[in-house]
This record gives sequence, structure tokens and C-alpha cells, in this order.
Amino acid sequence: MRFTSRQRLDDAVLERSFTLGEIPGVLWTSASTATPAPLILLGHPGGLHRMYPRLAARGRSCVAAGFAAAALELPGSGQRPRHAAAEQARADLRRALEAGEPVGEIVDRLVLPLVDRAVPELRAALDDLLALPEIDGPVGYAGGVMAIGIRLAVVEPRLAAAVLFAGSFVPAVLVEQARQITLPLQVLLQWDDENNDRQQALDLFDAFGSREKTLHANMGGHTGVPSFEADSGNRFFARHLLG
Amino acid sequence: MRFTSRQRLDDAVLERSFTLGEIPGVLWTSASTATPAPLILLGHPGGLHRMYPRLAARGRSCVAAGFAAAALELPGSGQRPRHAAAEQARADLRRALEAGEPVGEIVDRLVLPLVDRAVPELRAALDDLLALPEIDGPVGYAGGVMAIGIRLAVVEPRLAAAVLFAGSFVPAVLVEQARQITLPLQVLLQWDDENNDRQQALDLFDAFGSREKTLHANMGGHTGVPSFEADSGNRFFARHLLG
Repeated sequence: MRFTSRQRLDDAVLERSFTLGEIPGVLWTSASTATPAPLILLGHPGGLHRMYPRLAARGRSCVAAGFAAAALELPGSGQRPRHAAAEQARADLRRALEAGEPVGEIVDRLVLPLVDRAVPELRAALDDLLALPEIDGPVGYAGGVMAIGIRLAVVEPRLAAAVLFAGSFVPAVLVEQARQITLPLQVLLQWDDENNDRQQALDLFDAFGSREKTLHANMGGHTGVPSFEADSGNRFFARHLLG
Repeated sequence: MRFTSRQRLDDAVLERSFTLGEIPGVLWTSASTATPAPLILLGHPGGLHRMYPRLAARGRSCVAAGFAAAALELPGSGQRPRHAAAEQARADLRRALEAGEPVGEIVDRLVLPLVDRAVPELRAALDDLLALPEIDGPVGYAGGVMAIGIRLAVVEPRLAAAVLFAGSFVPAVLVEQARQITLPLQVLLQWDDENNDRQQALDLFDAFGSREKTLHANMGGHTGVPSFEADSGNRFFARHLLG
């Protein structure tokens, strides 16, 4: 991991861009505290540059709550090389949704290779991030691409809690894997999400094996998660990652 | 309203028992602050004495968060006279549930008269409580007997926000009235509530007319609401009742 730029936000937060091999990422840490902080990995739908305002706001909010936060570009997004099969699957999905056709096989073609590529990258980033003196375990995962959050929760023992967003398609094989998850979960659901079938999201919530899991369902569409949920997520992580 | 006893809890909270006519109640206020505080009415299933430990804990937590809190005995509960028809309906409900028979008509017989009696009593208590110098509007409602919370939210303009518990039977006529409710809601659902049909609870959440409504679904049975939800409810009320 190599830091490529640094700036102060609000005087209190240090934001550093980095590359992990060819993968860009951003790290937010306290500019004032020397105590190592637990890390929250910020999930997102891909496109660090496009997502920057929202991610930086979440990064700042994490630091204010006593954490470090980091986001990594997804495979095939932003400046990273596209994958022809993924682009094809994305086009097929759009067409199938418009035609009202079943999408299960297309979702598998789109999401499973993404998960297979993204999760090892996130774990490699964890290796380097946890080696920094500013950061100390345990780790939380917060945010989008539910399928990535599920796989990471299944395979990554350093993950201690996750806030997942029921806002994207989840292959059936990953719904099955969700039953193996035992770490504390807070699951966000937008009640009228245009991208997301409500009953499937409720079934997925039911499937998680965790003894502590809380569903927070709010009104509105895909991008309408209320701002108070950031605060609520920080308190969830404080219960599980701090002292 | 007449105060009948007073004691300090933790030095910081003043707890006073009162009677409103023949109806017993308890009021929790700050023992240290002179600033009038918004009031949270604490709902419960009836039986102030039996419920006291839980209600006092919630009262203390409300005061610590900057509110006053009050609970009123329900009609037909605790020391108050029983109603023969309600006792009969309660026995019929138990029998019908054991036999797996439909309960709609029995729920109407049990819950609608309770709502018709309890809501005017709560409103009369509000008249007196809001006249105290320690209390100033707006008012929140938090807790049990969903049907009472629904009716109160429909008829009581001083109510500004409510945390409702999807843990009891709701007559169909009140599910219809829920559509008229517009105040901010936080709805608690116990995912495996033995007293409560999950799908009916989700349908009720869907029915509320409020633009800001959040469902918090947690694992476990009827009495297993996690303690962190008290804190979450206080923050919800802080958003809507405090400056």
C-alpha cells in the first residue's frame, strides 16, 4: 500500500488516498488522536470518485465516532479496467428488468465474479491497513453491495460487526451462505427501493444466522437512507468495536 | 391530579406517584434541572406495580435524555376495577389461540373498549401533566398496546412523535385508522414474537401514513426487546421533541 496524497478535513480528520497495487483507495483517520482506532470498511456500489462526497461524509462521521474508515475501488469500476462479461451482464440485467423477465441467472453472472474479485482485495487491504500504527482491530464493514458484505462476513475472521444495505441483488448461493454468518448485524432496508424486492430483502434478513441482528427499515427509495442512520450505525459499531 | 408520594432515584430523578381521579400513575422528572422538559408517555400492557421495574428504568432513561416521563394505569388493570366483558374476551382469546381458531372478533371485543376507555384518560392526564411547570410540550408516546398508540396518534394533536411496539393484537378498524397517522414513528418488532403475527406487523408498519417511519426489527420473543432500543428511542425523541 502506497499513500499518494493527503489533506486535512475540518482540521480533525486526515484523509489519505492510497493505491494497493493498482487499486485506488481512501483512508480517513483522526488528525488529533494518537490512540489506534478500530477500522470501518466503507462499502459502496463502485466509482470512488462519483461516490466521494457521500464516502467522505461517512468517513468523517466514523472518525468523529472514534473509528478509522477506508474505502477501496471495486473491480471494474472507476479508473479500473472494465470486464467485458460484467458489462454484458449489466446490460442483460437492465434489459431483463425492463422486460419484467426473471433475472436470477444474470445476477449470478454479474455479482458472483464481482464478489470473487472484490473480497480478496478487501482482505489484502485489511492486511496493510491493520499494519498501520493508527489502526487496530477489530474491523467493521458498513454499506453497499450486500453480496460482498455477506461473503466478507463469511470468510474474514477479523470482521466483528457489519451494517449491511439490503439494496442490491443477492445471488441465491450467497443467501444460503448468509445462514453461516454469526457476527452482529444491522441491516438497512429502504421500504420502497425501486432496485430491491422487499420480500426478498426480508427473507434475506431472516436467513442471517446472527443472534444479534436488527433490521432498520425506512421510507423512500434506493438512495433515500435517512442521515440519522449514519449516527445509528456508528453507535452499533461503538457497541461492538469499542471497549 | 394529586401527588401521593415522592422519592429520589439516583439523586438525579424525582419519581412521584399520583392519582388522576381514581387512576394511579407515576411521573419521573429531573431532580436537578429547572428547565421544562418535553413529556414522554410510557405505554405498557397494564399493571403498574408488576411493570414498575421496567417502567422506572425507562423513566430514568427518559430523564437522563432530557425528558419527563409518565405512566398511567390502564382501565381494568392493577388496582382498578375489572370489566366482566373484558375478562370474558381475554379468556375467549386464550381459548381461541390454543385451538388455533380465528381471533378477529374476540380481539375487537377485547381491545376496542380498552382503547375507548384508555385514550380519553391519557388525554386527561396530559391536560394536568402539561400544566406542571416542570413539563412543556411537545409530547411523545413510547411503548406497548399498539392499538392505544394508534388511536392516541390519530386524535391527540399534542402528540408529536411515537415509538410503538408491534407486540399486541390490533383490530382491523385501527389498522385502517393507522393510515391517517402522519407523525414520525419508530416501530419496534420482535422477529419471533410468540404473541404477534410477523406478516400482520409488517402490514401494519406499511399502513402507517407517516412519511418518517422506521421499523426496528430485532431477534427474539415478545419480551426480548434489546436494551439498546431504549437509547435508540430516546435519540428518536430528541430529534423530534427537543429544539
